[in-house]
Amino acid sequence: MPDYQAPLRDLRFVMDEMFDYPAHYARLPNGEDADPDTVAAILEEGARFSREILLPLNQSGDQEGCTWEGGEVKAPKGFREAYQQYVEGGWPGLSADPEYGGQGLPPSLAMILSEMICASNLAWGMYPGLSHGAADALRHHGTEEQKRTYLTRLIEGTWTGTMCLTEPHCGTDLGLIKTRAVPQDDGSFEISGTKIFISAGEHDLAENIVHLVLAKLPDAPQGSKGISLFVVPKFLPGADGEVGERNGVVCGSLEHKMGIHGNATCVMNFDAAKGFLVGAPNKGLACMFTMMNDARIGVGIQGLGLMEASFQNSLAYARDRLQMRALSGPKASDKPADPIIVHPDVRRMLLTQKAFAEGGRMLVLYAAQLVDVVASGEEGHERADELLGFLTPIVKAFLTEVGFESTNEGVQVFGGHGFIQEWGMEQRVRDSRITRLYEGTTGIQALDLLGRKVLMSQGESLKLFTKEVHKFCQAEADNEALKGFIEPLAKLNAEWGELTMSIGMKAMEDREEVGAASVDYLMYSGYVTLAYLFARAVKCARHALSASPSDAAFYHAKIQTAQFYFARILPRTRAHAMMIQAGAESLMAVSEGDFGLGFEI
Amino acid sequence: MPDYQAPLRDLRFVMDEMFDYPAHYARLPNGEDADPDTVAAILEEGARFSREILLPLNQSGDQEGCTWEGGEVKAPKGFREAYQQYVEGGWPGLSADPEYGGQGLPPSLAMILSEMICASNLAWGMYPGLSHGAADALRHHGTEEQKRTYLTRLIEGTWTGTMCLTEPHCGTDLGLIKTRAVPQDDGSFEISGTKIFISAGEHDLAENIVHLVLAKLPDAPQGSKGISLFVVPKFLPGADGEVGERNGVVCGSLEHKMGIHGNATCVMNFDAAKGFLVGAPNKGLACMFTMMNDARIGVGIQGLGLMEASFQNSLAYARDRLQMRALSGPKASDKPADPIIVHPDVRRMLLTQKAFAEGGRMLVLYAAQLVDVVASGEEGHERADELLGFLTPIVKAFLTEVGFESTNEGVQVFGGHGFIQEWGMEQRVRDSRITRLYEGTTGIQALDLLGRKVLMSQGESLKLFTKEVHKFCQAEADNEALKGFIEPLAKLNAEWGELTMSIGMKAMEDREEVGAASVDYLMYSGYVTLAYLFARAVKCARHALSASPSDAAFYHAKIQTAQFYFARILPRTRAHAMMIQAGAESLMAVSEGDFGLGFEI
Repeated sequence: MPDYQAPLRDLRFVMDEMFDYPAHYARLPNGEDADPDTVAAILEEGARFSREILLPLNQSGDQEGCTWEGGEVKAPKGFREAYQQYVEGGWPGLSADPEYGGQGLPPSLAMILSEMICASNLAWGMYPGLSHGAADALRHHGTEEQKRTYLTRLIEGTWTGTMCLTEPHCGTDLGLIKTRAVPQDDGSFEISGTKIFISAGEHDLAENIVHLVLAKLPDAPQGSKGISLFVVPKFLPGADGEVGERNGVVCGSLEHKMGIHGNATCVMNFDAAKGFLVGAPNKGLACMFTMMNDARIGVGIQGLGLMEASFQNSLAYARDRLQMRALSGPKASDKPADPIIVHPDVRRMLLTQKAFAEGGRMLVLYAAQLVDVVASGEEGHERADELLGFLTPIVKAFLTEVGFESTNEGVQVFGGHGFIQEWGMEQRVRDSRITRLYEGTTGIQALDLLGRKVLMSQGESLKLFTKEVHKFCQAEADNEALKGFIEPLAKLNAEWGELTMSIGMKAMEDREEVGAASVDYLMYSGYVTLAYLFARAVKCARHALSASPSDAAFYHAKIQTAQFYFARILPRTRAHAMMIQAGAESLMAVSEGDFGLGFEI
Repeated sequence: MPDYQAPLRDLRFVMDEMFDYPAHYARLPNGEDADPDTVAAILEEGARFSREILLPLNQSGDQEGCTWEGGEVKAPKGFREAYQQYVEGGWPGLSADPEYGGQGLPPSLAMILSEMICASNLAWGMYPGLSHGAADALRHHGTEEQKRTYLTRLIEGTWTGTMCLTEPHCGTDLGLIKTRAVPQDDGSFEISGTKIFISAGEHDLAENIVHLVLAKLPDAPQGSKGISLFVVPKFLPGADGEVGERNGVVCGSLEHKMGIHGNATCVMNFDAAKGFLVGAPNKGLACMFTMMNDARIGVGIQGLGLMEASFQNSLAYARDRLQMRALSGPKASDKPADPIIVHPDVRRMLLTQKAFAEGGRMLVLYAAQLVDVVASGEEGHERADELLGFLTPIVKAFLTEVGFESTNEGVQVFGGHGFIQEWGMEQRVRDSRITRLYEGTTGIQALDLLGRKVLMSQGESLKLFTKEVHKFCQAEADNEALKGFIEPLAKLNAEWGELTMSIGMKAMEDREEVGAASVDYLMYSGYVTLAYLFARAVKCARHALSASPSDAAFYHAKIQTAQFYFARILPRTRAHAMMIQAGAESLMAVSEGDFGLGFEI
């Protein structure tokens, strides 16, 4: 039976020692509520809830899946009860606006909890998870009445939300959507069309479901400039705000998927459903990005949670499983063989998992502070917003790419047993596979990073970050404690800018150069970003060690993990840099018809 | 519905134009039967059988899985009938010894067919596939009576075989096995114990199952030197050789797995089952390696088949799916969007799949010629055997590692649809996941390559190959047609030797350096091996083009694929070389107890 414990010690290190969250919270307008004791209590209670309530439903939910009958969907056994406990605990409104019933704590706290939830039970976590995006869209673009009606319920958790974007013929290219919205005399709209891949589109966890739906008005311009956003509730709210008449939106079927079986992925049929415009007509895409950016970071956190969970279980197995003797001689002579953690290649796999999980946590908590500042609207929020925009595709795509690698290393540590469902390791692989795809594939994130964020800002958004790295490297250049870290980091940081320039130059001749470099550029960016964060972690760990703490072993392991990262992971940047420089030529040479000449008759 | 066509054109290129299979077959003792017309007829019929009989059962087999009732196992619907057609077609004995009913064609032909079978339906292919290893062990180590009784039936296909090695507490470390063999007065043995992960251990495809079982004699030495091999039939053969009394070996349960659902992975309980010694007492491990080497190459071919199948379907989807416009301007102005094959990053994924499938095919067909020569016992068989021993872990581990990457790229090309079962892309990922694990994980293959094959031969086995590469590079150094290929290949080939030397030196100080470098060394070796083969492919393609053939496009695409491989895949060697050089230090530093300090309370 797989286990999971929230990494509270590591969280404390990153929050308190690296990024000084206590001071950060104290600076925020609502920060006095996020005092260290409250934060600690929330994290501990979140850890308990994740482990005791959600984790036990993870494997059973995967095996049972969701069931559909006549448009009604049942989530796996126990999911509904767990959700009720979640609502009773007040979790849905943790970081939400007090004006609409939320507790008003900084968004970063909800993000930290999200890691624990996703690590315990991703499929379950997506039910409340999707509500966040819907709530965000309403908070930013909804009318006061819409907020009172829908947002309060989403924050309460008695209703859940969805994002209805994708249609059978379009996912990335939302300009192609066909769902129609016809204005009615009462100011509402009749929404008709089919949406697919709607996570938590229908279920039995909450009394109502609030769909945020992209659709086209009759006179809408072509393409993505003609998309509007509507709120379409499953049950129309009555005059009293309670659940009223059933609306014309029905789940037509459930998708059969590789993973996240416990979450209902729905085909949603809108048949003259009553909807209400959110935001301005034809401005739906901008509203959608409000949901999307939040969701993208959320998916990165899913990658993080899954790799931590996988790591913890492969570590336990590697300590327990006896197989072969160490090449340098027996280590457990009293046993018939050594535990496999003695073997260097097993350690390579475990350390890869450990480094990505800890590095990913630093990245998420770095980004989470920016989210707090942006949400606060306080001084520095514009810079934070730009930096966050730059980091969002990295958080999303890099953490899900290495997350998938990492859950696969978890399987590999188990050998053949990793392939067997009972151990729970293969479920993490299947669940993590979707994170590379939804809310924009890795390829789409890479275009967002390189094309929209970096090149369209003339490199300014990149510089916001590389300047910070540069300053750090300069300040620590002579710090003996950081020997072996600063020099390679400074080199990579400089190269990052040079590669960007070189792509930018080529792209002026041929726009395809952007797409050709994009994924390698994103991965390169991710590796360098983690290198910077690990160097900062080493600085903090060395500092802590200078006071001879009782838990010195934790800090030594942190430094050793950073050393592993620099020695055995960071060299991947060499390959990515060369591939970026190789350009588009070899990608564009083969003509479309010639790809299949080896097998097409 | 996923499709698959055997890549006959590409096979012909590699067989006829690159490796001159016609001349190769003509040199073999039994080669006159493998004339070009016969070979072509076999490949075409194999292609038809795979596509028409096996492919339609692939998804249904995955969804239905196997069923267990009271020790009896049923394979998915249609599997039994397909197997009967396979037997009626004479396929099981294609490359088997005519002395025992086989057709005596070179083993390479069975390997080539195996690619098609695995590409169509891996789970089905494992039922006949496991028989090969069992037949091989009996042919090399069985008595004449054992061959007449069992081998003839395996070759006929009316009986199938298994390899019973793994036990709950040991997979890699077979010295730990507990299954016992007690000698009986009639010269037989009573076998008792539990074996797990037994592929095709019980099923309804054939009338009898021949288990090759590792067990320990009462007086056996400790460890792997005390293992003996036994043949244990499900039904004891009667005096007439027909199926007789039921033996004491029963399937206790089926494993629930991530993939290959259509194949029965069995827990096999041996309860005083009657068995017969194969080979000498306590020499079972050597017998087992006879099965194992064959099986390892077989698993590499599985990786190849799965990536070809995935590639063909992602290519079709990329041509069909309309989404976004090319960054450089619309390519299909008559359509609402461009087919996604216009996007450079989609092409990167498709070309990655194409390059690995074509490169993998070259590697398999290169190795297959060695298999033929070894099997023939003719001149050169010793060199061929050593070279094959060197290449076997590369074929197994490299092709399954990049095979898994490649099936995942296939999912990625499909975006969210790739995660949905109906498209068949995620099944390829799940099925290919096992190939990195069974018959020795990638880590075990890497130790075999670096430790046993390369370092224990003082680098001689490596030199057999690198000398060949070196000669090729020297001969083609001034060949304008190979510009851009020879120089990087020659550099890598030299570096390969230097890296080996450097690991060897370090390993003299610390044996853990071998394990620390092994997987990166294996991957490095794989990439360089494919670079050599692609360079040879370019030479052949250029030669063919000089005659202005009607299918010039095929040769151009081949050269372009090689260019892509050199530009966008081969740079990965830079990362692996650096990781090899980084050594064991960062892997061994963290002490076992400190790995979990971030979450352990």
